[in-house]
Amino acid sequence: MQYKKNFYQIKSNDEIFSKIEKEKEYIGYYNLIYQDTSEIKEFAKGVKQKHVVVLGIGGSSLGTYAIHKFLQHKENSKKLHFLESTDPIDMYYKISKIDLNDALFIVISKSGTTIETISILKYISSKVLLDSKNCVVITEDDSKLNDFAIHHDMKRFFIPKDVGGRFSVFSAVGLLPLCIMGLDVDEILSGCKEVSESYFSKNGYYEEIMQKARFMVENKHRFNINVIFSYSSLLEGFNKWYIQLWGESLGKKNINGTKQALTPIGLLGPIDQHSFLQLIIDGKRDKTVTFIKIEDFENDVKIPDVSLVGIEELDYVNNIPFKELINKQADATIESIESFRDIPCDVITIYKVDEYNLAKLMFSYQLLTSVVGKFVQINTYDQPGVEAGKIILKEKLQGDGE
Amino acid sequence: MQYKKNFYQIKSNDEIFSKIEKEKEYIGYYNLIYQDTSEIKEFAKGVKQKHVVVLGIGGSSLGTYAIHKFLQHKENSKKLHFLESTDPIDMYYKISKIDLNDALFIVISKSGTTIETISILKYISSKVLLDSKNCVVITEDDSKLNDFAIHHDMKRFFIPKDVGGRFSVFSAVGLLPLCIMGLDVDEILSGCKEVSESYFSKNGYYEEIMQKARFMVENKHRFNINVIFSYSSLLEGFNKWYIQLWGESLGKKNINGTKQALTPIGLLGPIDQHSFLQLIIDGKRDKTVTFIKIEDFENDVKIPDVSLVGIEELDYVNNIPFKELINKQADATIESIESFRDIPCDVITIYKVDEYNLAKLMFSYQLLTSVVGKFVQINTYDQPGVEAGKIILKEKLQGDGE
Repeated sequence: MQYKKNFYQIKSNDEIFSKIEKEKEYIGYYNLIYQDTSEIKEFAKGVKQKHVVVLGIGGSSLGTYAIHKFLQHKENSKKLHFLESTDPIDMYYKISKIDLNDALFIVISKSGTTIETISILKYISSKVLLDSKNCVVITEDDSKLNDFAIHHDMKRFFIPKDVGGRFSVFSAVGLLPLCIMGLDVDEILSGCKEVSESYFSKNGYYEEIMQKARFMVENKHRFNINVIFSYSSLLEGFNKWYIQLWGESLGKKNINGTKQALTPIGLLGPIDQHSFLQLIIDGKRDKTVTFIKIEDFENDVKIPDVSLVGIEELDYVNNIPFKELINKQADATIESIESFRDIPCDVITIYKVDEYNLAKLMFSYQLLTSVVGKFVQINTYDQPGVEAGKIILKEKLQGDGE
Repeated sequence: MQYKKNFYQIKSNDEIFSKIEKEKEYIGYYNLIYQDTSEIKEFAKGVKQKHVVVLGIGGSSLGTYAIHKFLQHKENSKKLHFLESTDPIDMYYKISKIDLNDALFIVISKSGTTIETISILKYISSKVLLDSKNCVVITEDDSKLNDFAIHHDMKRFFIPKDVGGRFSVFSAVGLLPLCIMGLDVDEILSGCKEVSESYFSKNGYYEEIMQKARFMVENKHRFNINVIFSYSSLLEGFNKWYIQLWGESLGKKNINGTKQALTPIGLLGPIDQHSFLQLIIDGKRDKTVTFIKIEDFENDVKIPDVSLVGIEELDYVNNIPFKELINKQADATIESIESFRDIPCDVITIYKVDEYNLAKLMFSYQLLTSVVGKFVQINTYDQPGVEAGKIILKEKLQGDGE
């Protein structure tokens, strides 16, 4: 008897783990956590400008924005701006808030020829002289943007070739602007290391990540939507970063040519309790829900002991700290969802609002994405689907010049 | 022979239309468009404060934010703020940007006892004396918040009982703050009227809306996700408003007790070309995609005729107005998606960035939502699924006070 097969089969955890271990040799993001940050810190120390402007789109800005949005209240007095969209009104409005003569421009493009970034760079360069004093470049070491930087003697930082844009937040792409804003980049890397070492030594994070990935893959047809429900507005940027990471990494054809789909959605509590929650609860069971809570906001602002005439029935909230209110709102939503038993749901609790804890969350999501990608047998790190549109655009624009 | 049935069946367009016509008698949003705006304009004229603060969550703020975000660059010099989340750090940070002594507070809650809004109101009232000079209330005419306003002799505007929160943007909820910000509320209502009259006289919008609704309902199992891909950052708020409108209205059990699901997702181009697009293109075919473009941004900023040393290969973008670049990016993405033929896709073009055109878009989406709701035979206007969580929360908080 002989047996051959050509169908896709979900592999064992051990097989996946050894594939991920092997992947570390040629996928760069795993190794960013051991980088030397002294050059970044040295450069950041010398930045005198009040405004810090990131010119970058997608993977060149979303991760930085995620950490900035989470820790904005702990940053120094500099102002961080992001220029990414080619929307003329939006761009004009954002630029009007920047003192161009007191700004450092950080131009970020892995390929060096991202059309949005270079178009905005051209626009900026027509408004203010860009030179080594007010412009720094983060790109691949052999890109056209690198040539530009060399020509103008600008400081350059590099994105390793084996680090994809959406996995680049822990390279100079994220660390440089965040360090300039006064955040502790070594704490960021410590958080990553904690998760990485736990995972690769098959401790705590290993079990969690494997179980979650396996569940999502085994149930991907039934639950094709993965909702993150973050109970803090500070996680708004994290949600966006997650959407890119998950969507762009996992929306692929697998080795059998079958189109995969795990569709990410990011919600913010309590705001989306007043919106999307109804759909989760009474809608079709096509969603998993991951709640993210912050245990200690380190902010003790309370609802004051004020009784409002007419609305005395709400006096039971008096003296409750807002941080407790929001967490009870999360707990109430979680309990309500758990009571249905057919909405798969898990809860991640971040202990503190700091660099270390957010980095742990983000690195664990990178790992989860890599593991899910291995389970569904796709290339997690490319994005072949968007190339056709780029070619069409180039044709349209070049036709224009004629 | 006899025949009985108890299964759900998609009704004819004529049946749906006559149900919608009947609905106008007891669902209030259809009739908001004929309201008299003189009281709103009169009040707005008298507002002297520099800061305008909306205290409201969900339907009490999303629609206002959508229009504000779209037309921010046309507003007067007042500053509009939204306080909605109970996140203590976020709230604290937002309040720090408001001069409380030069602010008008607009407290919006349909029920009058929304826990987030009242908690924040209590907090504000402990920081600044609220009275008829700096506080106005928008609520139902018999709510507890109305009692509060009467007690303090504050100006009151009303949300009709038959207008649900997520359908209330064209009531005082949206019109009052937007009018104070200098936008033309009569133009807003004109846009709504144009769509409404076209629909109800079975002209242009009737066909479009019926066809689209029918397609979505007939294919809801295959395409359970409806993506709006807006090619302008100005539509960021519209996307959020759409997500609430669609998700909370249509995530319901139908008359057969079957859980319905049409899951809304909002994307922004060109940013999400660098993120979610890959998933649309190579992922499972579970999404419809609606593109929204702006024909004329009324902004002629061009990519300057600058050649950057090293990056000369991108000189083909020189002299192209940004408004043309972003629209060509949209067209390239649309062409690329259309080429697959199995991704259902439609394109809405807004002619101008003004009150009239955005209102047309929003009102047509309200109508579309109502029509889809009729097709799937649900109550589009309630939200029974979120009540359980509210009861659990109240128990948790009241337990606290003991």
